[in-house]
Amino acid sequence: MRDVLPDEVALRDWAMGQILAVYRRHGFVRIETPAVENLKLLLRSEGGENEKLIFKILKRGEKLAGAASPDEMADLGLRFDLTVPLVRYYAHNHPRLPQPLKAIQIGPVWRAERPQQGRYRQFTQCDIDILGVASEVAEIELILATTEALTALGLKDLTVRLNDRRVLSAVAAHCGFDPARAGSVFIALDKLDKVSRDDVAAELRAAGHAADAIDRLLAILAAGTTPSDLRSRLGAAADPMVWQGLQRIVDVVEAQAAGRFRLVFDATLVRGMGYYTGPIFEVQHGGQTSSIAGGGRYDRMIGRFIGRDVPATGFSIGFERVIGLLMERGPAGEAEAERVVLVFDEAMPALTRVLAMARELREQGKHVLLETSTKRLGKQLQELETRGFRRIGVVRPDGSVEWREPRTGGAGEARA
Amino acid sequence: MRDVLPDEVALRDWAMGQILAVYRRHGFVRIETPAVENLKLLLRSEGGENEKLIFKILKRGEKLAGAASPDEMADLGLRFDLTVPLVRYYAHNHPRLPQPLKAIQIGPVWRAERPQQGRYRQFTQCDIDILGVASEVAEIELILATTEALTALGLKDLTVRLNDRRVLSAVAAHCGFDPARAGSVFIALDKLDKVSRDDVAAELRAAGHAADAIDRLLAILAAGTTPSDLRSRLGAAADPMVWQGLQRIVDVVEAQAAGRFRLVFDATLVRGMGYYTGPIFEVQHGGQTSSIAGGGRYDRMIGRFIGRDVPATGFSIGFERVIGLLMERGPAGEAEAERVVLVFDEAMPALTRVLAMARELREQGKHVLLETSTKRLGKQLQELETRGFRRIGVVRPDGSVEWREPRTGGAGEARA
Repeated sequence: MRDVLPDEVALRDWAMGQILAVYRRHGFVRIETPAVENLKLLLRSEGGENEKLIFKILKRGEKLAGAASPDEMADLGLRFDLTVPLVRYYAHNHPRLPQPLKAIQIGPVWRAERPQQGRYRQFTQCDIDILGVASEVAEIELILATTEALTALGLKDLTVRLNDRRVLSAVAAHCGFDPARAGSVFIALDKLDKVSRDDVAAELRAAGHAADAIDRLLAILAAGTTPSDLRSRLGAAADPMVWQGLQRIVDVVEAQAAGRFRLVFDATLVRGMGYYTGPIFEVQHGGQTSSIAGGGRYDRMIGRFIGRDVPATGFSIGFERVIGLLMERGPAGEAEAERVVLVFDEAMPALTRVLAMARELREQGKHVLLETSTKRLGKQLQELETRGFRRIGVVRPDGSVEWREPRTGGAGEARA
Repeated sequence: MRDVLPDEVALRDWAMGQILAVYRRHGFVRIETPAVENLKLLLRSEGGENEKLIFKILKRGEKLAGAASPDEMADLGLRFDLTVPLVRYYAHNHPRLPQPLKAIQIGPVWRAERPQQGRYRQFTQCDIDILGVASEVAEIELILATTEALTALGLKDLTVRLNDRRVLSAVAAHCGFDPARAGSVFIALDKLDKVSRDDVAAELRAAGHAADAIDRLLAILAAGTTPSDLRSRLGAAADPMVWQGLQRIVDVVEAQAAGRFRLVFDATLVRGMGYYTGPIFEVQHGGQTSSIAGGGRYDRMIGRFIGRDVPATGFSIGFERVIGLLMERGPAGEAEAERVVLVFDEAMPALTRVLAMARELREQGKHVLLETSTKRLGKQLQELETRGFRRIGVVRPDGSVEWREPRTGGAGEARA
């Protein structure tokens, strides 16, 4: 885990504000769940590898004294994602929630991973989910809202990749893979954006899959990249409903995208989580192969909590990755509030006048920093300039202000 | 711990935004520390009772297997306040931080208290701190910024109570209390806003303090409530520096307050934390005796981490209590974005047109919710009205929109 310095916090707050504003305009409402959840809930969540990375919280007092083994010493844990808490929240609160629920969640999650470059044990996730909408209108809304949020952050050149878990299953079945072992086919496929087709074929052979199934798979995937291309190759294995839905997502989103981003159907897109049941999607930025956002439909997850299925689909922005991109680009493109410093002599009786001046500037929306002057005023002023202040006023003993000429200021900047 | 429903999250986000905006205008910058800190740090922090309420995180793998007793099973804990993490953050990062540091912190903290009405085991704190300023200019800035933030939330009728830990010690010494037992005098004094003077006297007698000291104390505190009143009664026990500082805070803040809030000197104000060293303050709202914000100077805390003292003072808004007050008052006084719903038939081919319409409304800053129509359209529309939507449009098959007459709308609302 790590500390965040003021400049990065300012950027994170700005980015969060931009994302939230877009999502709210799209009719989503923010919800909040606690950081700590019941450990049993976290452990039965199909969270895969993430379950092994839970920070567990030690029981207290008598409860701890009664624990016979390490497994009994904890009954709470820190959430490792925002999807499990969302489903628990919905199960617990749905009579008091709007139906359908269009939820925004932004908050920290924790995973006990080995720390490495750019990966932390506490990091922020930023999800939108639509619970209660079965039609692909939900996917369309998620894709439009998420791409608009990323665009609002100044991220251009976005590509949305789209696939469907049911297409993956149909492809695997059509090619003749053992349905019970389709998981390992998907895992190999998922690597196609990083390794060659030959490598994927080798991995599938090593996993013991039939050679003719592997050949058929690669042939199918070598074909065109529209849903109808693949559908015609699958023939009877294609469920018309699935394909109509995908085609509608492609048609409607492309019409709305209007060149602002690209949408491509990609039959090799897999995504790791076991709970997806329908359309899945990822967003890539620029030429990079790693994704900055991803999601999909998980229609059968809520049913395990409340006994009846509720259709659900979500899209998660990789907030830390996005912040990494924005940090590389330097200061945010926003119109920042003007920052002003007033430097004054602590011993001077002018404090009241300085405060009144600061109040006036603040009422104009400016950020006003008051600094008492140090013995080395020149050095102090230089440091303030280094910190990025362009408007620095030194209060004279009579209460008037001498504004510094900005060193790098343009001609438009005049003495006040 | 608890879930927060969308309406409360909206209010919390609005309140947080208002507070942050005021603090930023006052030149404060936001910092972030992780939720999880080293347990040793949390336990050596003079956090008093709070240390007993730490949620401890179970060690993992080999580290856990090597633990001989419950005390050795945890090495991390959830933070119980934002002051301990701030001091650790400053010690760790100060070469990269602006000097002096004016820090904003807003975030959750955790305490394993027995859950009770209005008190949760996860709650939000909202602090500003000034590190590196020894003069009372820091206190003045904290008081002005905090009262302005509370005023921005619509909380009028604010009273700031001001005292100084050194005044408390001087009063106790002047009255003849045993300095080693002054703590119990302060604890009794602290109750003066809840119980009578007689009760306080009884508590002090029960604690074994000398009767004449108790009499002197009550006589002193019965006097006027200006710093100079008390100062003259203390005579030689009054440190001129302390009184000049307090008087300056009173004079300058009163001039700036200009009727927006009251500042009163109150020699019975104590505040619980053991680490305070100078001026302390609290804010009360309306006629209530409980405070909605509090803080003080803690000049010797950072020295225990970095080996040299750094003057420090902070002011914390009781965010949960403030939200409680705002919830009682109903919807925030903000100019809310207009919320629009477009209801359309999922089977209709008009989706693209609906989305284009939504985009246009969103570009005007409106929050636009898309809903597919259900079989019971009338009930659906009623529910949307109950949820507070005043502008509801039903998309006709030809793509045009029929706007609902708002049931409670005024004459100004026309059909679009």
